[in-house]
Amino acid sequence: MKAAVVGGGVIGGGWAARFLLNGWDVSVFDPGPDAERKINEVVANARRSLPGLYETALPAEGKLTFVNELPAAVRDADWIQESVPERLDLKHRVLGEIQTHAPDDALIGSSTSGFKPSELNQVNAGPRRARAFVAHPFNPVYLLPLVELVGQTTTVARASGILTSIGMKPLVVRKEIDAHIADRLLEAVWREALWLIKDDIATTEEIDNAIRFGFGLRWAQMGLFETYRIAGGEAGMAHFIEQFGPCLTWPWTKLMDVPELTDELVQKIANQSDHQSGHRSIRELERIRDDNLVAMMRALKWREWGAGVLLNEHDARLRSERVTSEKKPIRTVDRVIPVDWTDYNGHMNESRYGQVFSDAADSIMAMIGADEAYIASGLSYFTVDTHTRFLNECHAGDTVHVDTTVLEGAGKKLKLFHDMKRGDDTVATCEQLLIHVSLETRRSCEPGPTVSAKLAPLVVEGTS
Amino acid sequence: MKAAVVGGGVIGGGWAARFLLNGWDVSVFDPGPDAERKINEVVANARRSLPGLYETALPAEGKLTFVNELPAAVRDADWIQESVPERLDLKHRVLGEIQTHAPDDALIGSSTSGFKPSELNQVNAGPRRARAFVAHPFNPVYLLPLVELVGQTTTVARASGILTSIGMKPLVVRKEIDAHIADRLLEAVWREALWLIKDDIATTEEIDNAIRFGFGLRWAQMGLFETYRIAGGEAGMAHFIEQFGPCLTWPWTKLMDVPELTDELVQKIANQSDHQSGHRSIRELERIRDDNLVAMMRALKWREWGAGVLLNEHDARLRSERVTSEKKPIRTVDRVIPVDWTDYNGHMNESRYGQVFSDAADSIMAMIGADEAYIASGLSYFTVDTHTRFLNECHAGDTVHVDTTVLEGAGKKLKLFHDMKRGDDTVATCEQLLIHVSLETRRSCEPGPTVSAKLAPLVVEGTS
Repeated sequence: MKAAVVGGGVIGGGWAARFLLNGWDVSVFDPGPDAERKINEVVANARRSLPGLYETALPAEGKLTFVNELPAAVRDADWIQESVPERLDLKHRVLGEIQTHAPDDALIGSSTSGFKPSELNQVNAGPRRARAFVAHPFNPVYLLPLVELVGQTTTVARASGILTSIGMKPLVVRKEIDAHIADRLLEAVWREALWLIKDDIATTEEIDNAIRFGFGLRWAQMGLFETYRIAGGEAGMAHFIEQFGPCLTWPWTKLMDVPELTDELVQKIANQSDHQSGHRSIRELERIRDDNLVAMMRALKWREWGAGVLLNEHDARLRSERVTSEKKPIRTVDRVIPVDWTDYNGHMNESRYGQVFSDAADSIMAMIGADEAYIASGLSYFTVDTHTRFLNECHAGDTVHVDTTVLEGAGKKLKLFHDMKRGDDTVATCEQLLIHVSLETRRSCEPGPTVSAKLAPLVVEGTS
Repeated sequence: MKAAVVGGGVIGGGWAARFLLNGWDVSVFDPGPDAERKINEVVANARRSLPGLYETALPAEGKLTFVNELPAAVRDADWIQESVPERLDLKHRVLGEIQTHAPDDALIGSSTSGFKPSELNQVNAGPRRARAFVAHPFNPVYLLPLVELVGQTTTVARASGILTSIGMKPLVVRKEIDAHIADRLLEAVWREALWLIKDDIATTEEIDNAIRFGFGLRWAQMGLFETYRIAGGEAGMAHFIEQFGPCLTWPWTKLMDVPELTDELVQKIANQSDHQSGHRSIRELERIRDDNLVAMMRALKWREWGAGVLLNEHDARLRSERVTSEKKPIRTVDRVIPVDWTDYNGHMNESRYGQVFSDAADSIMAMIGADEAYIASGLSYFTVDTHTRFLNECHAGDTVHVDTTVLEGAGKKLKLFHDMKRGDDTVATCEQLLIHVSLETRRSCEPGPTVSAKLAPLVVEGTS
């Protein structure tokens, strides 16, 4: 599959990175002199953060090419994404040219944050009907899952499937409106924040703190309405709205008016922002943001909630695409070390080796049918003893795999030997003894006959 | 120290829990028939989530009492928190009574989300000047750190110190305005969201998804302005504002008008919310929210960023308050198991035992001066071998400690034996071999003389 990215910058670069790291070839057209450098910087950021979101290695990276003419970029593309500046005349010109040269069945998305499809498609598309749709992503595009889709129903359904396959969360907006959904909310906050600064109520840093130490943490996982549903408590949502509704007409907001963006206000905000974050470069801030997002999204993954559900679904797809080999030792883990596994020594913390080996044992569990249903039936294996040898350091971004040998598998005992490797080098080994247990009595017991039967042929004779 | 909570409900209960779990005695007054049950439920939620935010056990819980008269609650309190419904006449009556009976130097905070101190203090406080201040928290109060403080400078400074000591983040609002800072932003979003629902653009669930799969993840860690600073890229913040400024006057928002909260709109929202979340009880949703918050805040803790910095500072305070004992074995860990450490078997994942033992080794490192400065000088210890025996299960909320014996400590080798206990029961043991290394060559080398000298007396003779 091939994606064409028209218009570089931080959004176009984010799209390029998202497709590329999910195995697509990507062709970029941007006439700006700095486009190649800028896109490569975004892709570099993506390489150090995106693969660590998953417990499974992503497919091999696609090929990234930069072309000098728009037709060369879009001619054989399956997905074309327009991310040029937010000016309707410019969008019209670029989308017209795209549709003249694109394959008939190519999907043509626009990253516009404000324009409606009916506006975008007021364009001369040659003999064909103009057929661009809105595919509005959020920065950083390679990490944040949300894409707002607005357009013709069947087109948007096809687009949803592809976006899901590259780990994104399509949100189909059913009625076209200016600024779709998310930016309307963002714009409301932005406007109010400008007033707070103009009136010297708060600085940029105080406003950021008011968000990230409070409701920002709520919104990262539940959004607005589910949060308020809880606040309403047992009395329910209607009660909550009726109770807080009257506040809407109180003099709480300045929203009836728009602050004028004078030079003075712009400079005030810029100065406050320098004071708040100026000691770090934009590059540093990008990496901090990305590492934070990875760590929080991985926390939600563990919790099976919100953006975390999406990551687990993508892991499941990645795993299902792998061919399970009959070969021994068994390949039980194949993954990239995420940033949140490192410690003050700058390398992967020792406890995370234990997590990799625990995941390796889980792979064996899946193979022998000691799965969710089995656990729900009241049976499982518990680890009782591990002996780990740490032979080499691991760092964030390293691709590692585990080869597991089943040393013993008769009766209640299951003994595994895990060899964790980076390429051909062993970085750690672990001998792990598990005992089959009843989850009711929390005591050892014989495994079920199906599990025993599946386990027996995996045992490597004469190794124990 | 003693806190008085006047007005139960979810906010008053959250304050009670926050104080109580940080070692304060708490006295509650609320004339409602259900107050005691409701507050106990909030405190139960707090018990299962708050202690897991820290790597150090919190002080012993204070004593919670319910009294039938307001004067009995406030008479000997150091902090009095008013959390009655948002009606100014009611606030006046309650704050007047509080100030008649409170000690002269008691701090009197109001949880009001909208009123200004000048409004709250239009009250007959007897012979004294009315002196309430705004201390506006965010639900769940026992987890979210933010408290907006508005009031007289010296009072607010005293209040800040106390709030910090119970793990909160005071944000001093320098000019009093209706709704302080955060609720002005929230109100702007709420208003716009109501329009989106009224106009059938989006449902409650779609709006929540637009937030939590996109900008909500950004706001949980950086807020609005630092996020946009990055979006502006190398061109800077002033450039960003100038570029996006004109959008403010585009027809992007409905904000110039307030939607009327008709019965029909209220019911529409309630129905959509039922469809979105109605399959879970409020209790379930509360626990899901709390577990998500704990997991994300712990992720930020590991990243040393935002709300995570606050948690690390609180850990440092908790640790500094512990008396280091000369006794052997050495008490190296004393903590509660957080929710994000459990796995599909419902108990603590085996890799987290490794984390507890890794933390135990870090305590020894701190004792022997192999600290941050030592690491910065290019020296450290790396673990090369562990043998772990898993003897008992651990669950979220369990308080555990580790007793560590130093078996060997001469030259490059450091051998530790960790005994992880819940009460008197050993849940796991770990024999850990560490080797002293140069962080430059990544090879073994002799430790510095100060570290060697500090280590020698810790070694227990004849154990190895």
